Amino acid sequence: MIRSSVQHLSPYTPGEQPKVPGIIKLNTNENAYPPSPRVAEALRAFDCAKLARYPDPMCVKLREKICITDGNACGTPNNIFVGNGSDEVLRLMVDAFVENNGTVAYFNPSYSLYPVLTDIREARRFEIPLPRPGNFVAETLAALRRGKPDLLFTANPNAPTSEFYPVDAIREICGNFPGVVVIDEAYALFAEDNCVRLALSLPNAIVARTMSKAWSLAGLRLGYAIGPEPLIDALCKIKDSYNVDFLAQIAAEAAFSDPGRMLANRAKIIATRGRVATELRRRSWQCADSATNFIWASPPPPLKAADVNEHLKSKNIFVRWFPGETTGDFLRITVGTDAEMDAFLNAV
Amino acid sequence: MIRSSVQHLSPYTPGEQPKVPGIIKLNTNENAYPPSPRVAEALRAFDCAKLARYPDPMCVKLREKICITDGNACGTPNNIFVGNGSDEVLRLMVDAFVENNGTVAYFNPSYSLYPVLTDIREARRFEIPLPRPGNFVAETLAALRRGKPDLLFTANPNAPTSEFYPVDAIREICGNFPGVVVIDEAYALFAEDNCVRLALSLPNAIVARTMSKAWSLAGLRLGYAIGPEPLIDALCKIKDSYNVDFLAQIAAEAAFSDPGRMLANRAKIIATRGRVATELRRRSWQCADSATNFIWASPPPPLKAADVNEHLKSKNIFVRWFPGETTGDFLRITVGTDAEMDAFLNAV
Repeated sequence: MIRSSVQHLSPYTPGEQPKVPGIIKLNTNENAYPPSPRVAEALRAFDCAKLARYPDPMCVKLREKICITDGNACGTPNNIFVGNGSDEVLRLMVDAFVENNGTVAYFNPSYSLYPVLTDIREARRFEIPLPRPGNFVAETLAALRRGKPDLLFTANPNAPTSEFYPVDAIREICGNFPGVVVIDEAYALFAEDNCVRLALSLPNAIVARTMSKAWSLAGLRLGYAIGPEPLIDALCKIKDSYNVDFLAQIAAEAAFSDPGRMLANRAKIIATRGRVATELRRRSWQCADSATNFIWASPPPPLKAADVNEHLKSKNIFVRWFPGETTGDFLRITVGTDAEMDAFLNAV
Repeated sequence: MIRSSVQHLSPYTPGEQPKVPGIIKLNTNENAYPPSPRVAEALRAFDCAKLARYPDPMCVKLREKICITDGNACGTPNNIFVGNGSDEVLRLMVDAFVENNGTVAYFNPSYSLYPVLTDIREARRFEIPLPRPGNFVAETLAALRRGKPDLLFTANPNAPTSEFYPVDAIREICGNFPGVVVIDEAYALFAEDNCVRLALSLPNAIVARTMSKAWSLAGLRLGYAIGPEPLIDALCKIKDSYNVDFLAQIAAEAAFSDPGRMLANRAKIIATRGRVATELRRRSWQCADSATNFIWASPPPPLKAADVNEHLKSKNIFVRWFPGETTGDFLRITVGTDAEMDAFLNAV
C-alpha cells in the first residue's frame, strides 16, 4: 500500500532538539536572540475568535509588507510567494519546475534536504562536487551541460560551508543554463550581498528566503520565494490552499514592521562570529570565511571533528557534525551569544 | 521551465473570502462560534522568545493530547500524524500511497480537492458517480474492481452532499479492496458515528481529521490522520521537517484541553441545522439529511439554485453554489448562528 520509493526513502534528519535544561544549542543555526517584541504585541492584540475563519490564502498583507521592508527591492507582491517555512517553498519548486522523470542538480556538500526532495519526487539526483571558489562558474556550467537537469539548487551562502558566491557568478550560471536556478538565501541576511536583483531580472532565477535565521522566527515556519511572476504563479497553483496560518501571517507582519531589531541581532551575531573565528584560527583550526550565522571549522590534527563533537556533547554543548568524505573533518557551529561561544571555546 | 502538467492544471478554488464588512458568510463551512477561550489564554501566556527555536517536528505533546481527548479511541500517538491543515494530510496521502502513474479514486460529487491532488501528482483520475445510499457498497466495490486504484478518497459525511455513510458500509469496502481507503472525516464531529475504530483495526483504513470545522480553528491550519502505524510512518517520512508551527501546536493543545466548548458549539449548530432544514422543507426545498455543519438543499421549481445564489449575494449573504450536472441544482449553506440563518431564511 505504501509507494515503493517512499518505502526505500532515507528521510531528512533535522538536528537534534534535546530537551535537557541548561544545554548550549549550537546545532540547528537558530538565532541566538529573540524576535522583535512587536511579534508578542501582535499576538496579544489578536482576537482569537478570528481563528474560526480561514486565513488569507494569498497572504496579501504579508506580501506587501515583504516588498516594503526590502525597500521595493522585491518587486511587487506578484513576485512573492509565501510558504509554511522555506522547506515548503523548496519542495514546491521541485514539484513545479521538474518534470516527472526529470533531474535535480545540487552541490555536495550543500543543504542535505535537496537530495531528499529529489527522492520524494522520484526525480534523478545529479550531484555536483562543490567547486573551489575560483572554478565555481566553469565547473558548474560544465556539470550542468553534462547532467541536463531541470533545476539547480544553489544555497548562497552555502550550507554547511558558510561561504558566499559572488552575485556575478550566479548570474553567469543562470544566463548559460536553460532550467530554473533556485538560490536558497536562508543565510543571505548575514552576507554582504544577495541575488534578489537576479530573481527580479532573469526569467529562470528564483530566490528562497526564510524567517528562521536572521528574523529569529524558526518556530513560526515562514519562508518565501522572490522571482519572476510565471514561476511564482506556478508555485501558487500547486500549494495547499491555506498554507500559512493566520497567526504566522500576523506574527510575520509584525516582525517585518521592525527590521531594526533584526539588524541589531544580526550585527551582534556578525561581531561574535568574527571573534570566534579569529580565536579558532589562533588555535590552528581551519575556518571558512563565514557569511552566515554559523562557523564551518576543522580542528587541527591530531584532533578529529567527530571526537570533538562527542566531547562537546558530554559537556552539554551541541554542534553539528555531518559524517562523510566532504564534511567529516568539519564541525558546523551556530554562532550563539557571547557567553555561549565562550563556553564553547573553553570546551574545545 | 514550468512542469507541463502544472501549466495545464486547474487549481483548487477555495470559497470566496470577501472583505466587505457586515456580510453573512455561509460559504466555507467555518464554525459560527469562536474556539475555546483557552486558545487565547495559551497564546497570551506563550513566551515569544521561544519562536527563535524550531518547533517540535513530531508534535509529541499534541499527539498525546489528541489521544487523551478522544478517550483513547485514537490508539497511541504512533497512530497519529499531525499536519498543516487536513489539506496537507490529504496531499501527503496521495504522495505516500500512490505509485507514479498510479490511480486515485473518488466520488462525484465529493470534495473537489481530490481530483486536484490527483492532477498535481500526475496520477490517473478515477471518478465514481456517488451511488444512491442503498447501493453504496455494491456500486463502489464494482467500480474499484474496474478501476484498480491505489487509493480511494471517501469523505464521510460526504461534502457537499452532507450525508453520512454507515461505518459497516465503509468497513465492507475496506475489507474488499487492496488499496488504501482514506476516510476524510472533516465533518464527523457533527455526525452520530465515525470510522476511527476502522482506522485502528484494519491495515488499509486511514482517517483524516481537521480542527477547521467542529473545533472553530480554520485559521490555525491543523489537521491530523489516525491510522495503522505503517501508513502513519510513511506520512512522517515525506512531510516537511517542521510542518506544524509552534503557535499552532500550543493553540491546538489548548483547544483539545477543553472539548466541552467544542461540544457546546456543536450542539448549538446541530439544533440550528434541524430548525433550518425543517423550515426549508416546509417551503418545498429538497434537503438532504445533514450530518455536517452545512445544509445541501435544492430550491423548488421554478427557482434555480444559481439564481438564488446571486440573489443572496446581492443581499450580502454568501453561500456556495457548485456548477455542474450533479451539483448545479443545489446550494451548500453553512449553518451559521440563529440570527444569520434567520437572515438567510428571510432572503430566500
